[in-house]
Amino acid sequence: MENAVCFRNIGELVLVEPGDSVVLAKTGKCALIVRKGKIDKVIRDSAVARHNFAKVIDLKGNAVIPGFVDCHTHLIYAGERKDEMEQRMAGTSYMEILKEGGGILSTVLATRKATEDELFESARKRMLRMMSLGTTAFEIKSGYGLDLETEQKMLRVGQRLRKKLKIPVILTYLGAHAVPKGQKIDTYFEFVMDNLPEFRHLADGVDIFCEKDVFTVHHLRQLFLQARLVGFHQLRAHVDELSHQGGCYNAARLGAISCDHLEHATPHDIRAMHLAGTTAVLMPGVTFFLGGKRLPLVHTMIDAGVTLALATDCNPGSGPSYNMQTVMSLAVSMYRINPEQALIAATYGAAKALGGHKEYGGLLPGQRADFIVLKTQDYRDLFYYFGENFVDETYSAGKKVKGEKDPVSA
Amino acid sequence: MENAVCFRNIGELVLVEPGDSVVLAKTGKCALIVRKGKIDKVIRDSAVARHNFAKVIDLKGNAVIPGFVDCHTHLIYAGERKDEMEQRMAGTSYMEILKEGGGILSTVLATRKATEDELFESARKRMLRMMSLGTTAFEIKSGYGLDLETEQKMLRVGQRLRKKLKIPVILTYLGAHAVPKGQKIDTYFEFVMDNLPEFRHLADGVDIFCEKDVFTVHHLRQLFLQARLVGFHQLRAHVDELSHQGGCYNAARLGAISCDHLEHATPHDIRAMHLAGTTAVLMPGVTFFLGGKRLPLVHTMIDAGVTLALATDCNPGSGPSYNMQTVMSLAVSMYRINPEQALIAATYGAAKALGGHKEYGGLLPGQRADFIVLKTQDYRDLFYYFGENFVDETYSAGKKVKGEKDPVSA
Repeated sequence: MENAVCFRNIGELVLVEPGDSVVLAKTGKCALIVRKGKIDKVIRDSAVARHNFAKVIDLKGNAVIPGFVDCHTHLIYAGERKDEMEQRMAGTSYMEILKEGGGILSTVLATRKATEDELFESARKRMLRMMSLGTTAFEIKSGYGLDLETEQKMLRVGQRLRKKLKIPVILTYLGAHAVPKGQKIDTYFEFVMDNLPEFRHLADGVDIFCEKDVFTVHHLRQLFLQARLVGFHQLRAHVDELSHQGGCYNAARLGAISCDHLEHATPHDIRAMHLAGTTAVLMPGVTFFLGGKRLPLVHTMIDAGVTLALATDCNPGSGPSYNMQTVMSLAVSMYRINPEQALIAATYGAAKALGGHKEYGGLLPGQRADFIVLKTQDYRDLFYYFGENFVDETYSAGKKVKGEKDPVSA
Repeated sequence: MENAVCFRNIGELVLVEPGDSVVLAKTGKCALIVRKGKIDKVIRDSAVARHNFAKVIDLKGNAVIPGFVDCHTHLIYAGERKDEMEQRMAGTSYMEILKEGGGILSTVLATRKATEDELFESARKRMLRMMSLGTTAFEIKSGYGLDLETEQKMLRVGQRLRKKLKIPVILTYLGAHAVPKGQKIDTYFEFVMDNLPEFRHLADGVDIFCEKDVFTVHHLRQLFLQARLVGFHQLRAHVDELSHQGGCYNAARLGAISCDHLEHATPHDIRAMHLAGTTAVLMPGVTFFLGGKRLPLVHTMIDAGVTLALATDCNPGSGPSYNMQTVMSLAVSMYRINPEQALIAATYGAAKALGGHKEYGGLLPGQRADFIVLKTQDYRDLFYYFGENFVDETYSAGKKVKGEKDPVSA
């Protein structure tokens, strides 16, 4: 094993194995062997001395868990929206702010104005911070341009980020995020449909915000069918978040890889997700930040055999949230799922939502060596000592991530 | 001003002034002058050069806010209770676990076994961590002994902590925290009453857990009257948390300095708090960690003119929570109060719950120079970028705190 790196003295190694029921495998004191950026195998710590390795790294008895996968973000944007936070506290709703030209539309104005380099630099800083907090794979959406030029600019930034950071990044074209100010919904939607081919080589999939006063399930159906024809493989959608529109049901029936938000999805909709193998992407941080009361039927999803995924939804309006540890804590508290379920949803589940669960999310042999060394020997401390940051070091493809140690504003 | 220290280049200085309505005062770029550990005055940054100071410290344009006051903790204890976290996820309630001899009683066993030095060392480490996260004054309760020897041991540890750390620490005797295993409630309560004088010189006040199957309002009334006779000045109580027992009403009528928890307190009870000038101590982290659904009538309290305080309730059962930033975020989200109200409750309000609001909590001239330098120029980032730690440095009496940079387990 001369060309392998050995991470030894691991107090608790958490692997996430998919299967009929996904289980969390914990082993005793052990060592993780990494070859060419991938997991080679796990051996007993006492067996380390019997081999020669290119490098041996002592993890001091701490716990190792798979890196988090953040499978729903809007992290390329310009401008903050702190004033809206205060407007909402004073009683104005998220949709009222949007209708008055605030919300998403205020980020659209700022993002149109920003140069490609500015967007790249601010998004890169955010991602480095998120990587320091344990995230090793991302999904990133466009959707703050709502015109050909800016939507493409955002996705080019995404391409540059993927190349620069050398980590899994799934890019999603979200032209159908909101209707630009002054335009009619159908005129704008026609523009989105007509220009789908222009995004084919910039994005891996498409997404749509299906909601009252935004886009309807008819728009969703048209978009998905057209996207398939054009050659997009990943269809995903913001559905049934603030009201029940049937978005989840329709998206699942058309083969969505993920349905996201789902606060108003019914057991009927959930059955459709199960039948289609669609992953449910849950974002408790959004409910938390917006002060929502309605929660998705998480236990119905679990009972139906739907795979759960967790994500930050990192964006300037409904939560500039960087920290998957916080998201997991919120999921446990709000959804009453146990720490194990939350951790699986933040790794394997989220990887499945991106179609990447064979490649990463579990630390299984052959997968990317994307992992987190914790500042504790017991991964449950992530949940017990909530509000703390237990990530000591993040490794991507077996290499230590030089992240951003301080919080990133703006 | 040769014997004064000048903290200059402060981008945003947040002062909290009490009054008919407490207001948050923000000034422009300024400097804070500290003399003998106390706030001397605030001057414009441009005026700094005109004076001579013993020392000038450049805060690089960052925001400064008062240190947090954690006015309800049980941070002296031995043993973790992570298994209970999992029991609760599986559906067992907090009170069921207690009745079966778990919960508080399991911490009692571990705390009785621990030596005074062990308790001191673990509590000191926790407090250093909490100070790194911005807390500069504490309340600490006994209550994990439930016998003369251990209760006194806990309070002696508290005395040592106060002396060692040289910060405001209010100590509370909580003999009436639970009934020891195998004892009858009235027999044990008689022990508590008879031995009150034994705690007079160890604690500043008394507390009682008034709850169904624990102690009644009759116990509360007896304890409070006796405590006054013995000479305790601060009466506080865990009231109306899991059910409505009338604890808040009775405690307020008997002049409690704070009523704590209050999830089931009615408008009638709240009126009693207002009339008595009792501070409401709210602990959203407990509701969060235990997965409770019931919230206190926070807006009724605000409308009634009751002072709100926030606290962690740091303890091994209902939340080993160290982070007042997390508590403030939870308060904003769960109670729908605004960031300003949360910050006031975590500083001035909490100081008032300890009778210390003249001495600390506001950064007003004459008060202790207990403050936090943030990693941002805008204190609202504490709330907007939830899940991040924005505390750069904590100062206690004008001196930089050497805290504990890593999370503390066990």
